[in-house]
Amino acid sequence: MSQLVTREDVVKPQGEVVGTPSAGAAMPNPGRLFQTFNAYQQTAAMRAAINLDVFTAIGDRQTTAEQIAERAGAAERGIRILCDFLTVMGFLTKNESHYGLAPDAAMFLDRRSPAYMGSAARFLDAPEMLKAFDDLTAAVRKGGTVMGEEGTVGVENPIWVEFARSMAPMMMMPAEVISQLVDADKGGKCRVLDIAAGHGLFGINIARHNPQAEIVALDWASVLEVAKENAHKSGVDSRYSTLPGSAFEVEFGKGYDLVLLTNFLHHFDPPTNEELLRKVHAALAPSGRAVTLEFVPNDDRVTPPEAATFSMIMLGSTPHGDAYTFAEFERMFSNAGFARSEHFRQPFMPESVVISYK
Amino acid sequence: MSQLVTREDVVKPQGEVVGTPSAGAAMPNPGRLFQTFNAYQQTAAMRAAINLDVFTAIGDRQTTAEQIAERAGAAERGIRILCDFLTVMGFLTKNESHYGLAPDAAMFLDRRSPAYMGSAARFLDAPEMLKAFDDLTAAVRKGGTVMGEEGTVGVENPIWVEFARSMAPMMMMPAEVISQLVDADKGGKCRVLDIAAGHGLFGINIARHNPQAEIVALDWASVLEVAKENAHKSGVDSRYSTLPGSAFEVEFGKGYDLVLLTNFLHHFDPPTNEELLRKVHAALAPSGRAVTLEFVPNDDRVTPPEAATFSMIMLGSTPHGDAYTFAEFERMFSNAGFARSEHFRQPFMPESVVISYK
Repeated sequence: MSQLVTREDVVKPQGEVVGTPSAGAAMPNPGRLFQTFNAYQQTAAMRAAINLDVFTAIGDRQTTAEQIAERAGAAERGIRILCDFLTVMGFLTKNESHYGLAPDAAMFLDRRSPAYMGSAARFLDAPEMLKAFDDLTAAVRKGGTVMGEEGTVGVENPIWVEFARSMAPMMMMPAEVISQLVDADKGGKCRVLDIAAGHGLFGINIARHNPQAEIVALDWASVLEVAKENAHKSGVDSRYSTLPGSAFEVEFGKGYDLVLLTNFLHHFDPPTNEELLRKVHAALAPSGRAVTLEFVPNDDRVTPPEAATFSMIMLGSTPHGDAYTFAEFERMFSNAGFARSEHFRQPFMPESVVISYK
Repeated sequence: MSQLVTREDVVKPQGEVVGTPSAGAAMPNPGRLFQTFNAYQQTAAMRAAINLDVFTAIGDRQTTAEQIAERAGAAERGIRILCDFLTVMGFLTKNESHYGLAPDAAMFLDRRSPAYMGSAARFLDAPEMLKAFDDLTAAVRKGGTVMGEEGTVGVENPIWVEFARSMAPMMMMPAEVISQLVDADKGGKCRVLDIAAGHGLFGINIARHNPQAEIVALDWASVLEVAKENAHKSGVDSRYSTLPGSAFEVEFGKGYDLVLLTNFLHHFDPPTNEELLRKVHAALAPSGRAVTLEFVPNDDRVTPPEAATFSMIMLGSTPHGDAYTFAEFERMFSNAGFARSEHFRQPFMPESVVISYK
């Protein structure tokens, strides 16, 4: 016999509500607080499921805990608890004892999908990143990372090789959006400087759309090895060259039609960015454009959620980085000599694009 | 100039949708995946805000980042990013540069509220707990905790003293619900055995409602010190005695009207629980009842969310624990000799109550 005690049931005749300090008051629920105390388990569950390739197993029709456990070499009890948890989170479905992939999981977490993004966990949830949040209290006190003097933006930090190897899939959609916004399909002579190129996907994708585009990729030498591999795989290596070093120190050259600044400016404070943007301005041809991909919150800094929360990652992992509003980007570009900037927000991805005209 | 590129805008005349592998297909959004990769930051942000007493500062009308930072002895940039993040999460409101407390935060996170639950972070997010999830992959493989042989259920694990000290506020509401369900206000002779009493709140609350109730609290000796303090504060110490040791080994005595099993059975497997329940059955008077407080998922094990996800904590921190369904509890109690069990689910708290009759 199972019965649901409703809120009415526990209001006593005198009108006193059970368990709340003020009689008759609306009752806040500690459930959301409990959920937040335990939110770290969502990250842990996703990492475990990716490590054990649970989504691929289910996509491949191993749908019971027993079958998935056998394929993953894991305990059935462990898999059952993990898959139930992922079902509550909305990444799996459950029908009797059979698990299925929810649409997001089928698209992004089944290794056989061309849009597979599971590898992104290796960068976003790298041990160094998680460690940076172990003592967030100290970072809030200090106003910046406690990971060491420079956090992730230190010279040749090896995390950027991991970034280049693991984040490419998550950047395919933004790379395609940028190619569309700069009309890469129209072709024509186009010299592109890709600053902090990482995996190189943004420049490479322009080169794939425009057979006349020539890309110069700048990053730490170790990271450029990954970009060169990707350029080779995409068959654009004859139009792909590299500039190893720091964007703040290396000589860019002149006459670029496009300079790409993807996921880079958020690591630094506005004066540092303006110094870089003056260098970018000087490197552009008279009709050139800077293309910035960024998490851009609205002026209230609390919407939209994914752009607004990005500043927390910068607080945890950099000395002075931030998620800048479009007004702040406009000011930085304007101070660096750019004529005007435009903001393109995408409804289906967390980042948006700022195009700034020389 | 800021412009919103809508999904329609990026659908080219040919009908190809930008950035998706299949033309025209509905577009899953990687945003939720990104959010999950970063979910651990929600826990970190809540811990930092509690440590720095941000909610109390705001409740006390220090509403700008500058004011909160001064009071907390923290950097304004750190506080601004933290408070924006908590606003996105729904625990704060923001109006221009002024932060306010959302209802849940005002009730549970302002230290001046009688329902303050911030201390619960010290148990729920204790370093040992977070560490147990560092390698959840290994726990899923093994099917149980990798925290050491017994996890949190090892003999005299000091985490239970932390539990007793920090979890009392979160248990005030369930303690009140239990007192109501056993009609403590009706008074009359009532001998209560409170197994794994912890902070002692469940027994103490019955004693407060019923002046004739006599409580025997069982737990590790170090934990019972906390329960005795609480009994003293509540003025019920003359009717409060203790039984130090393991519930599996200590002699309970006889003739109890109530035996409380709050947040205890989830740590063990069904055979272990049945062994304990036979002992409980023997200790009860003929008209006695066992009162169990637990996270009880429905038979599908994936609803309601807070009860269903609790099994993950047991996977991470115990060798064999679980969140049991009511059918499973019914079976365990029945196998131990109980006549019948009833399930009371509360809409406003994540746990529910099972009452089992001798």
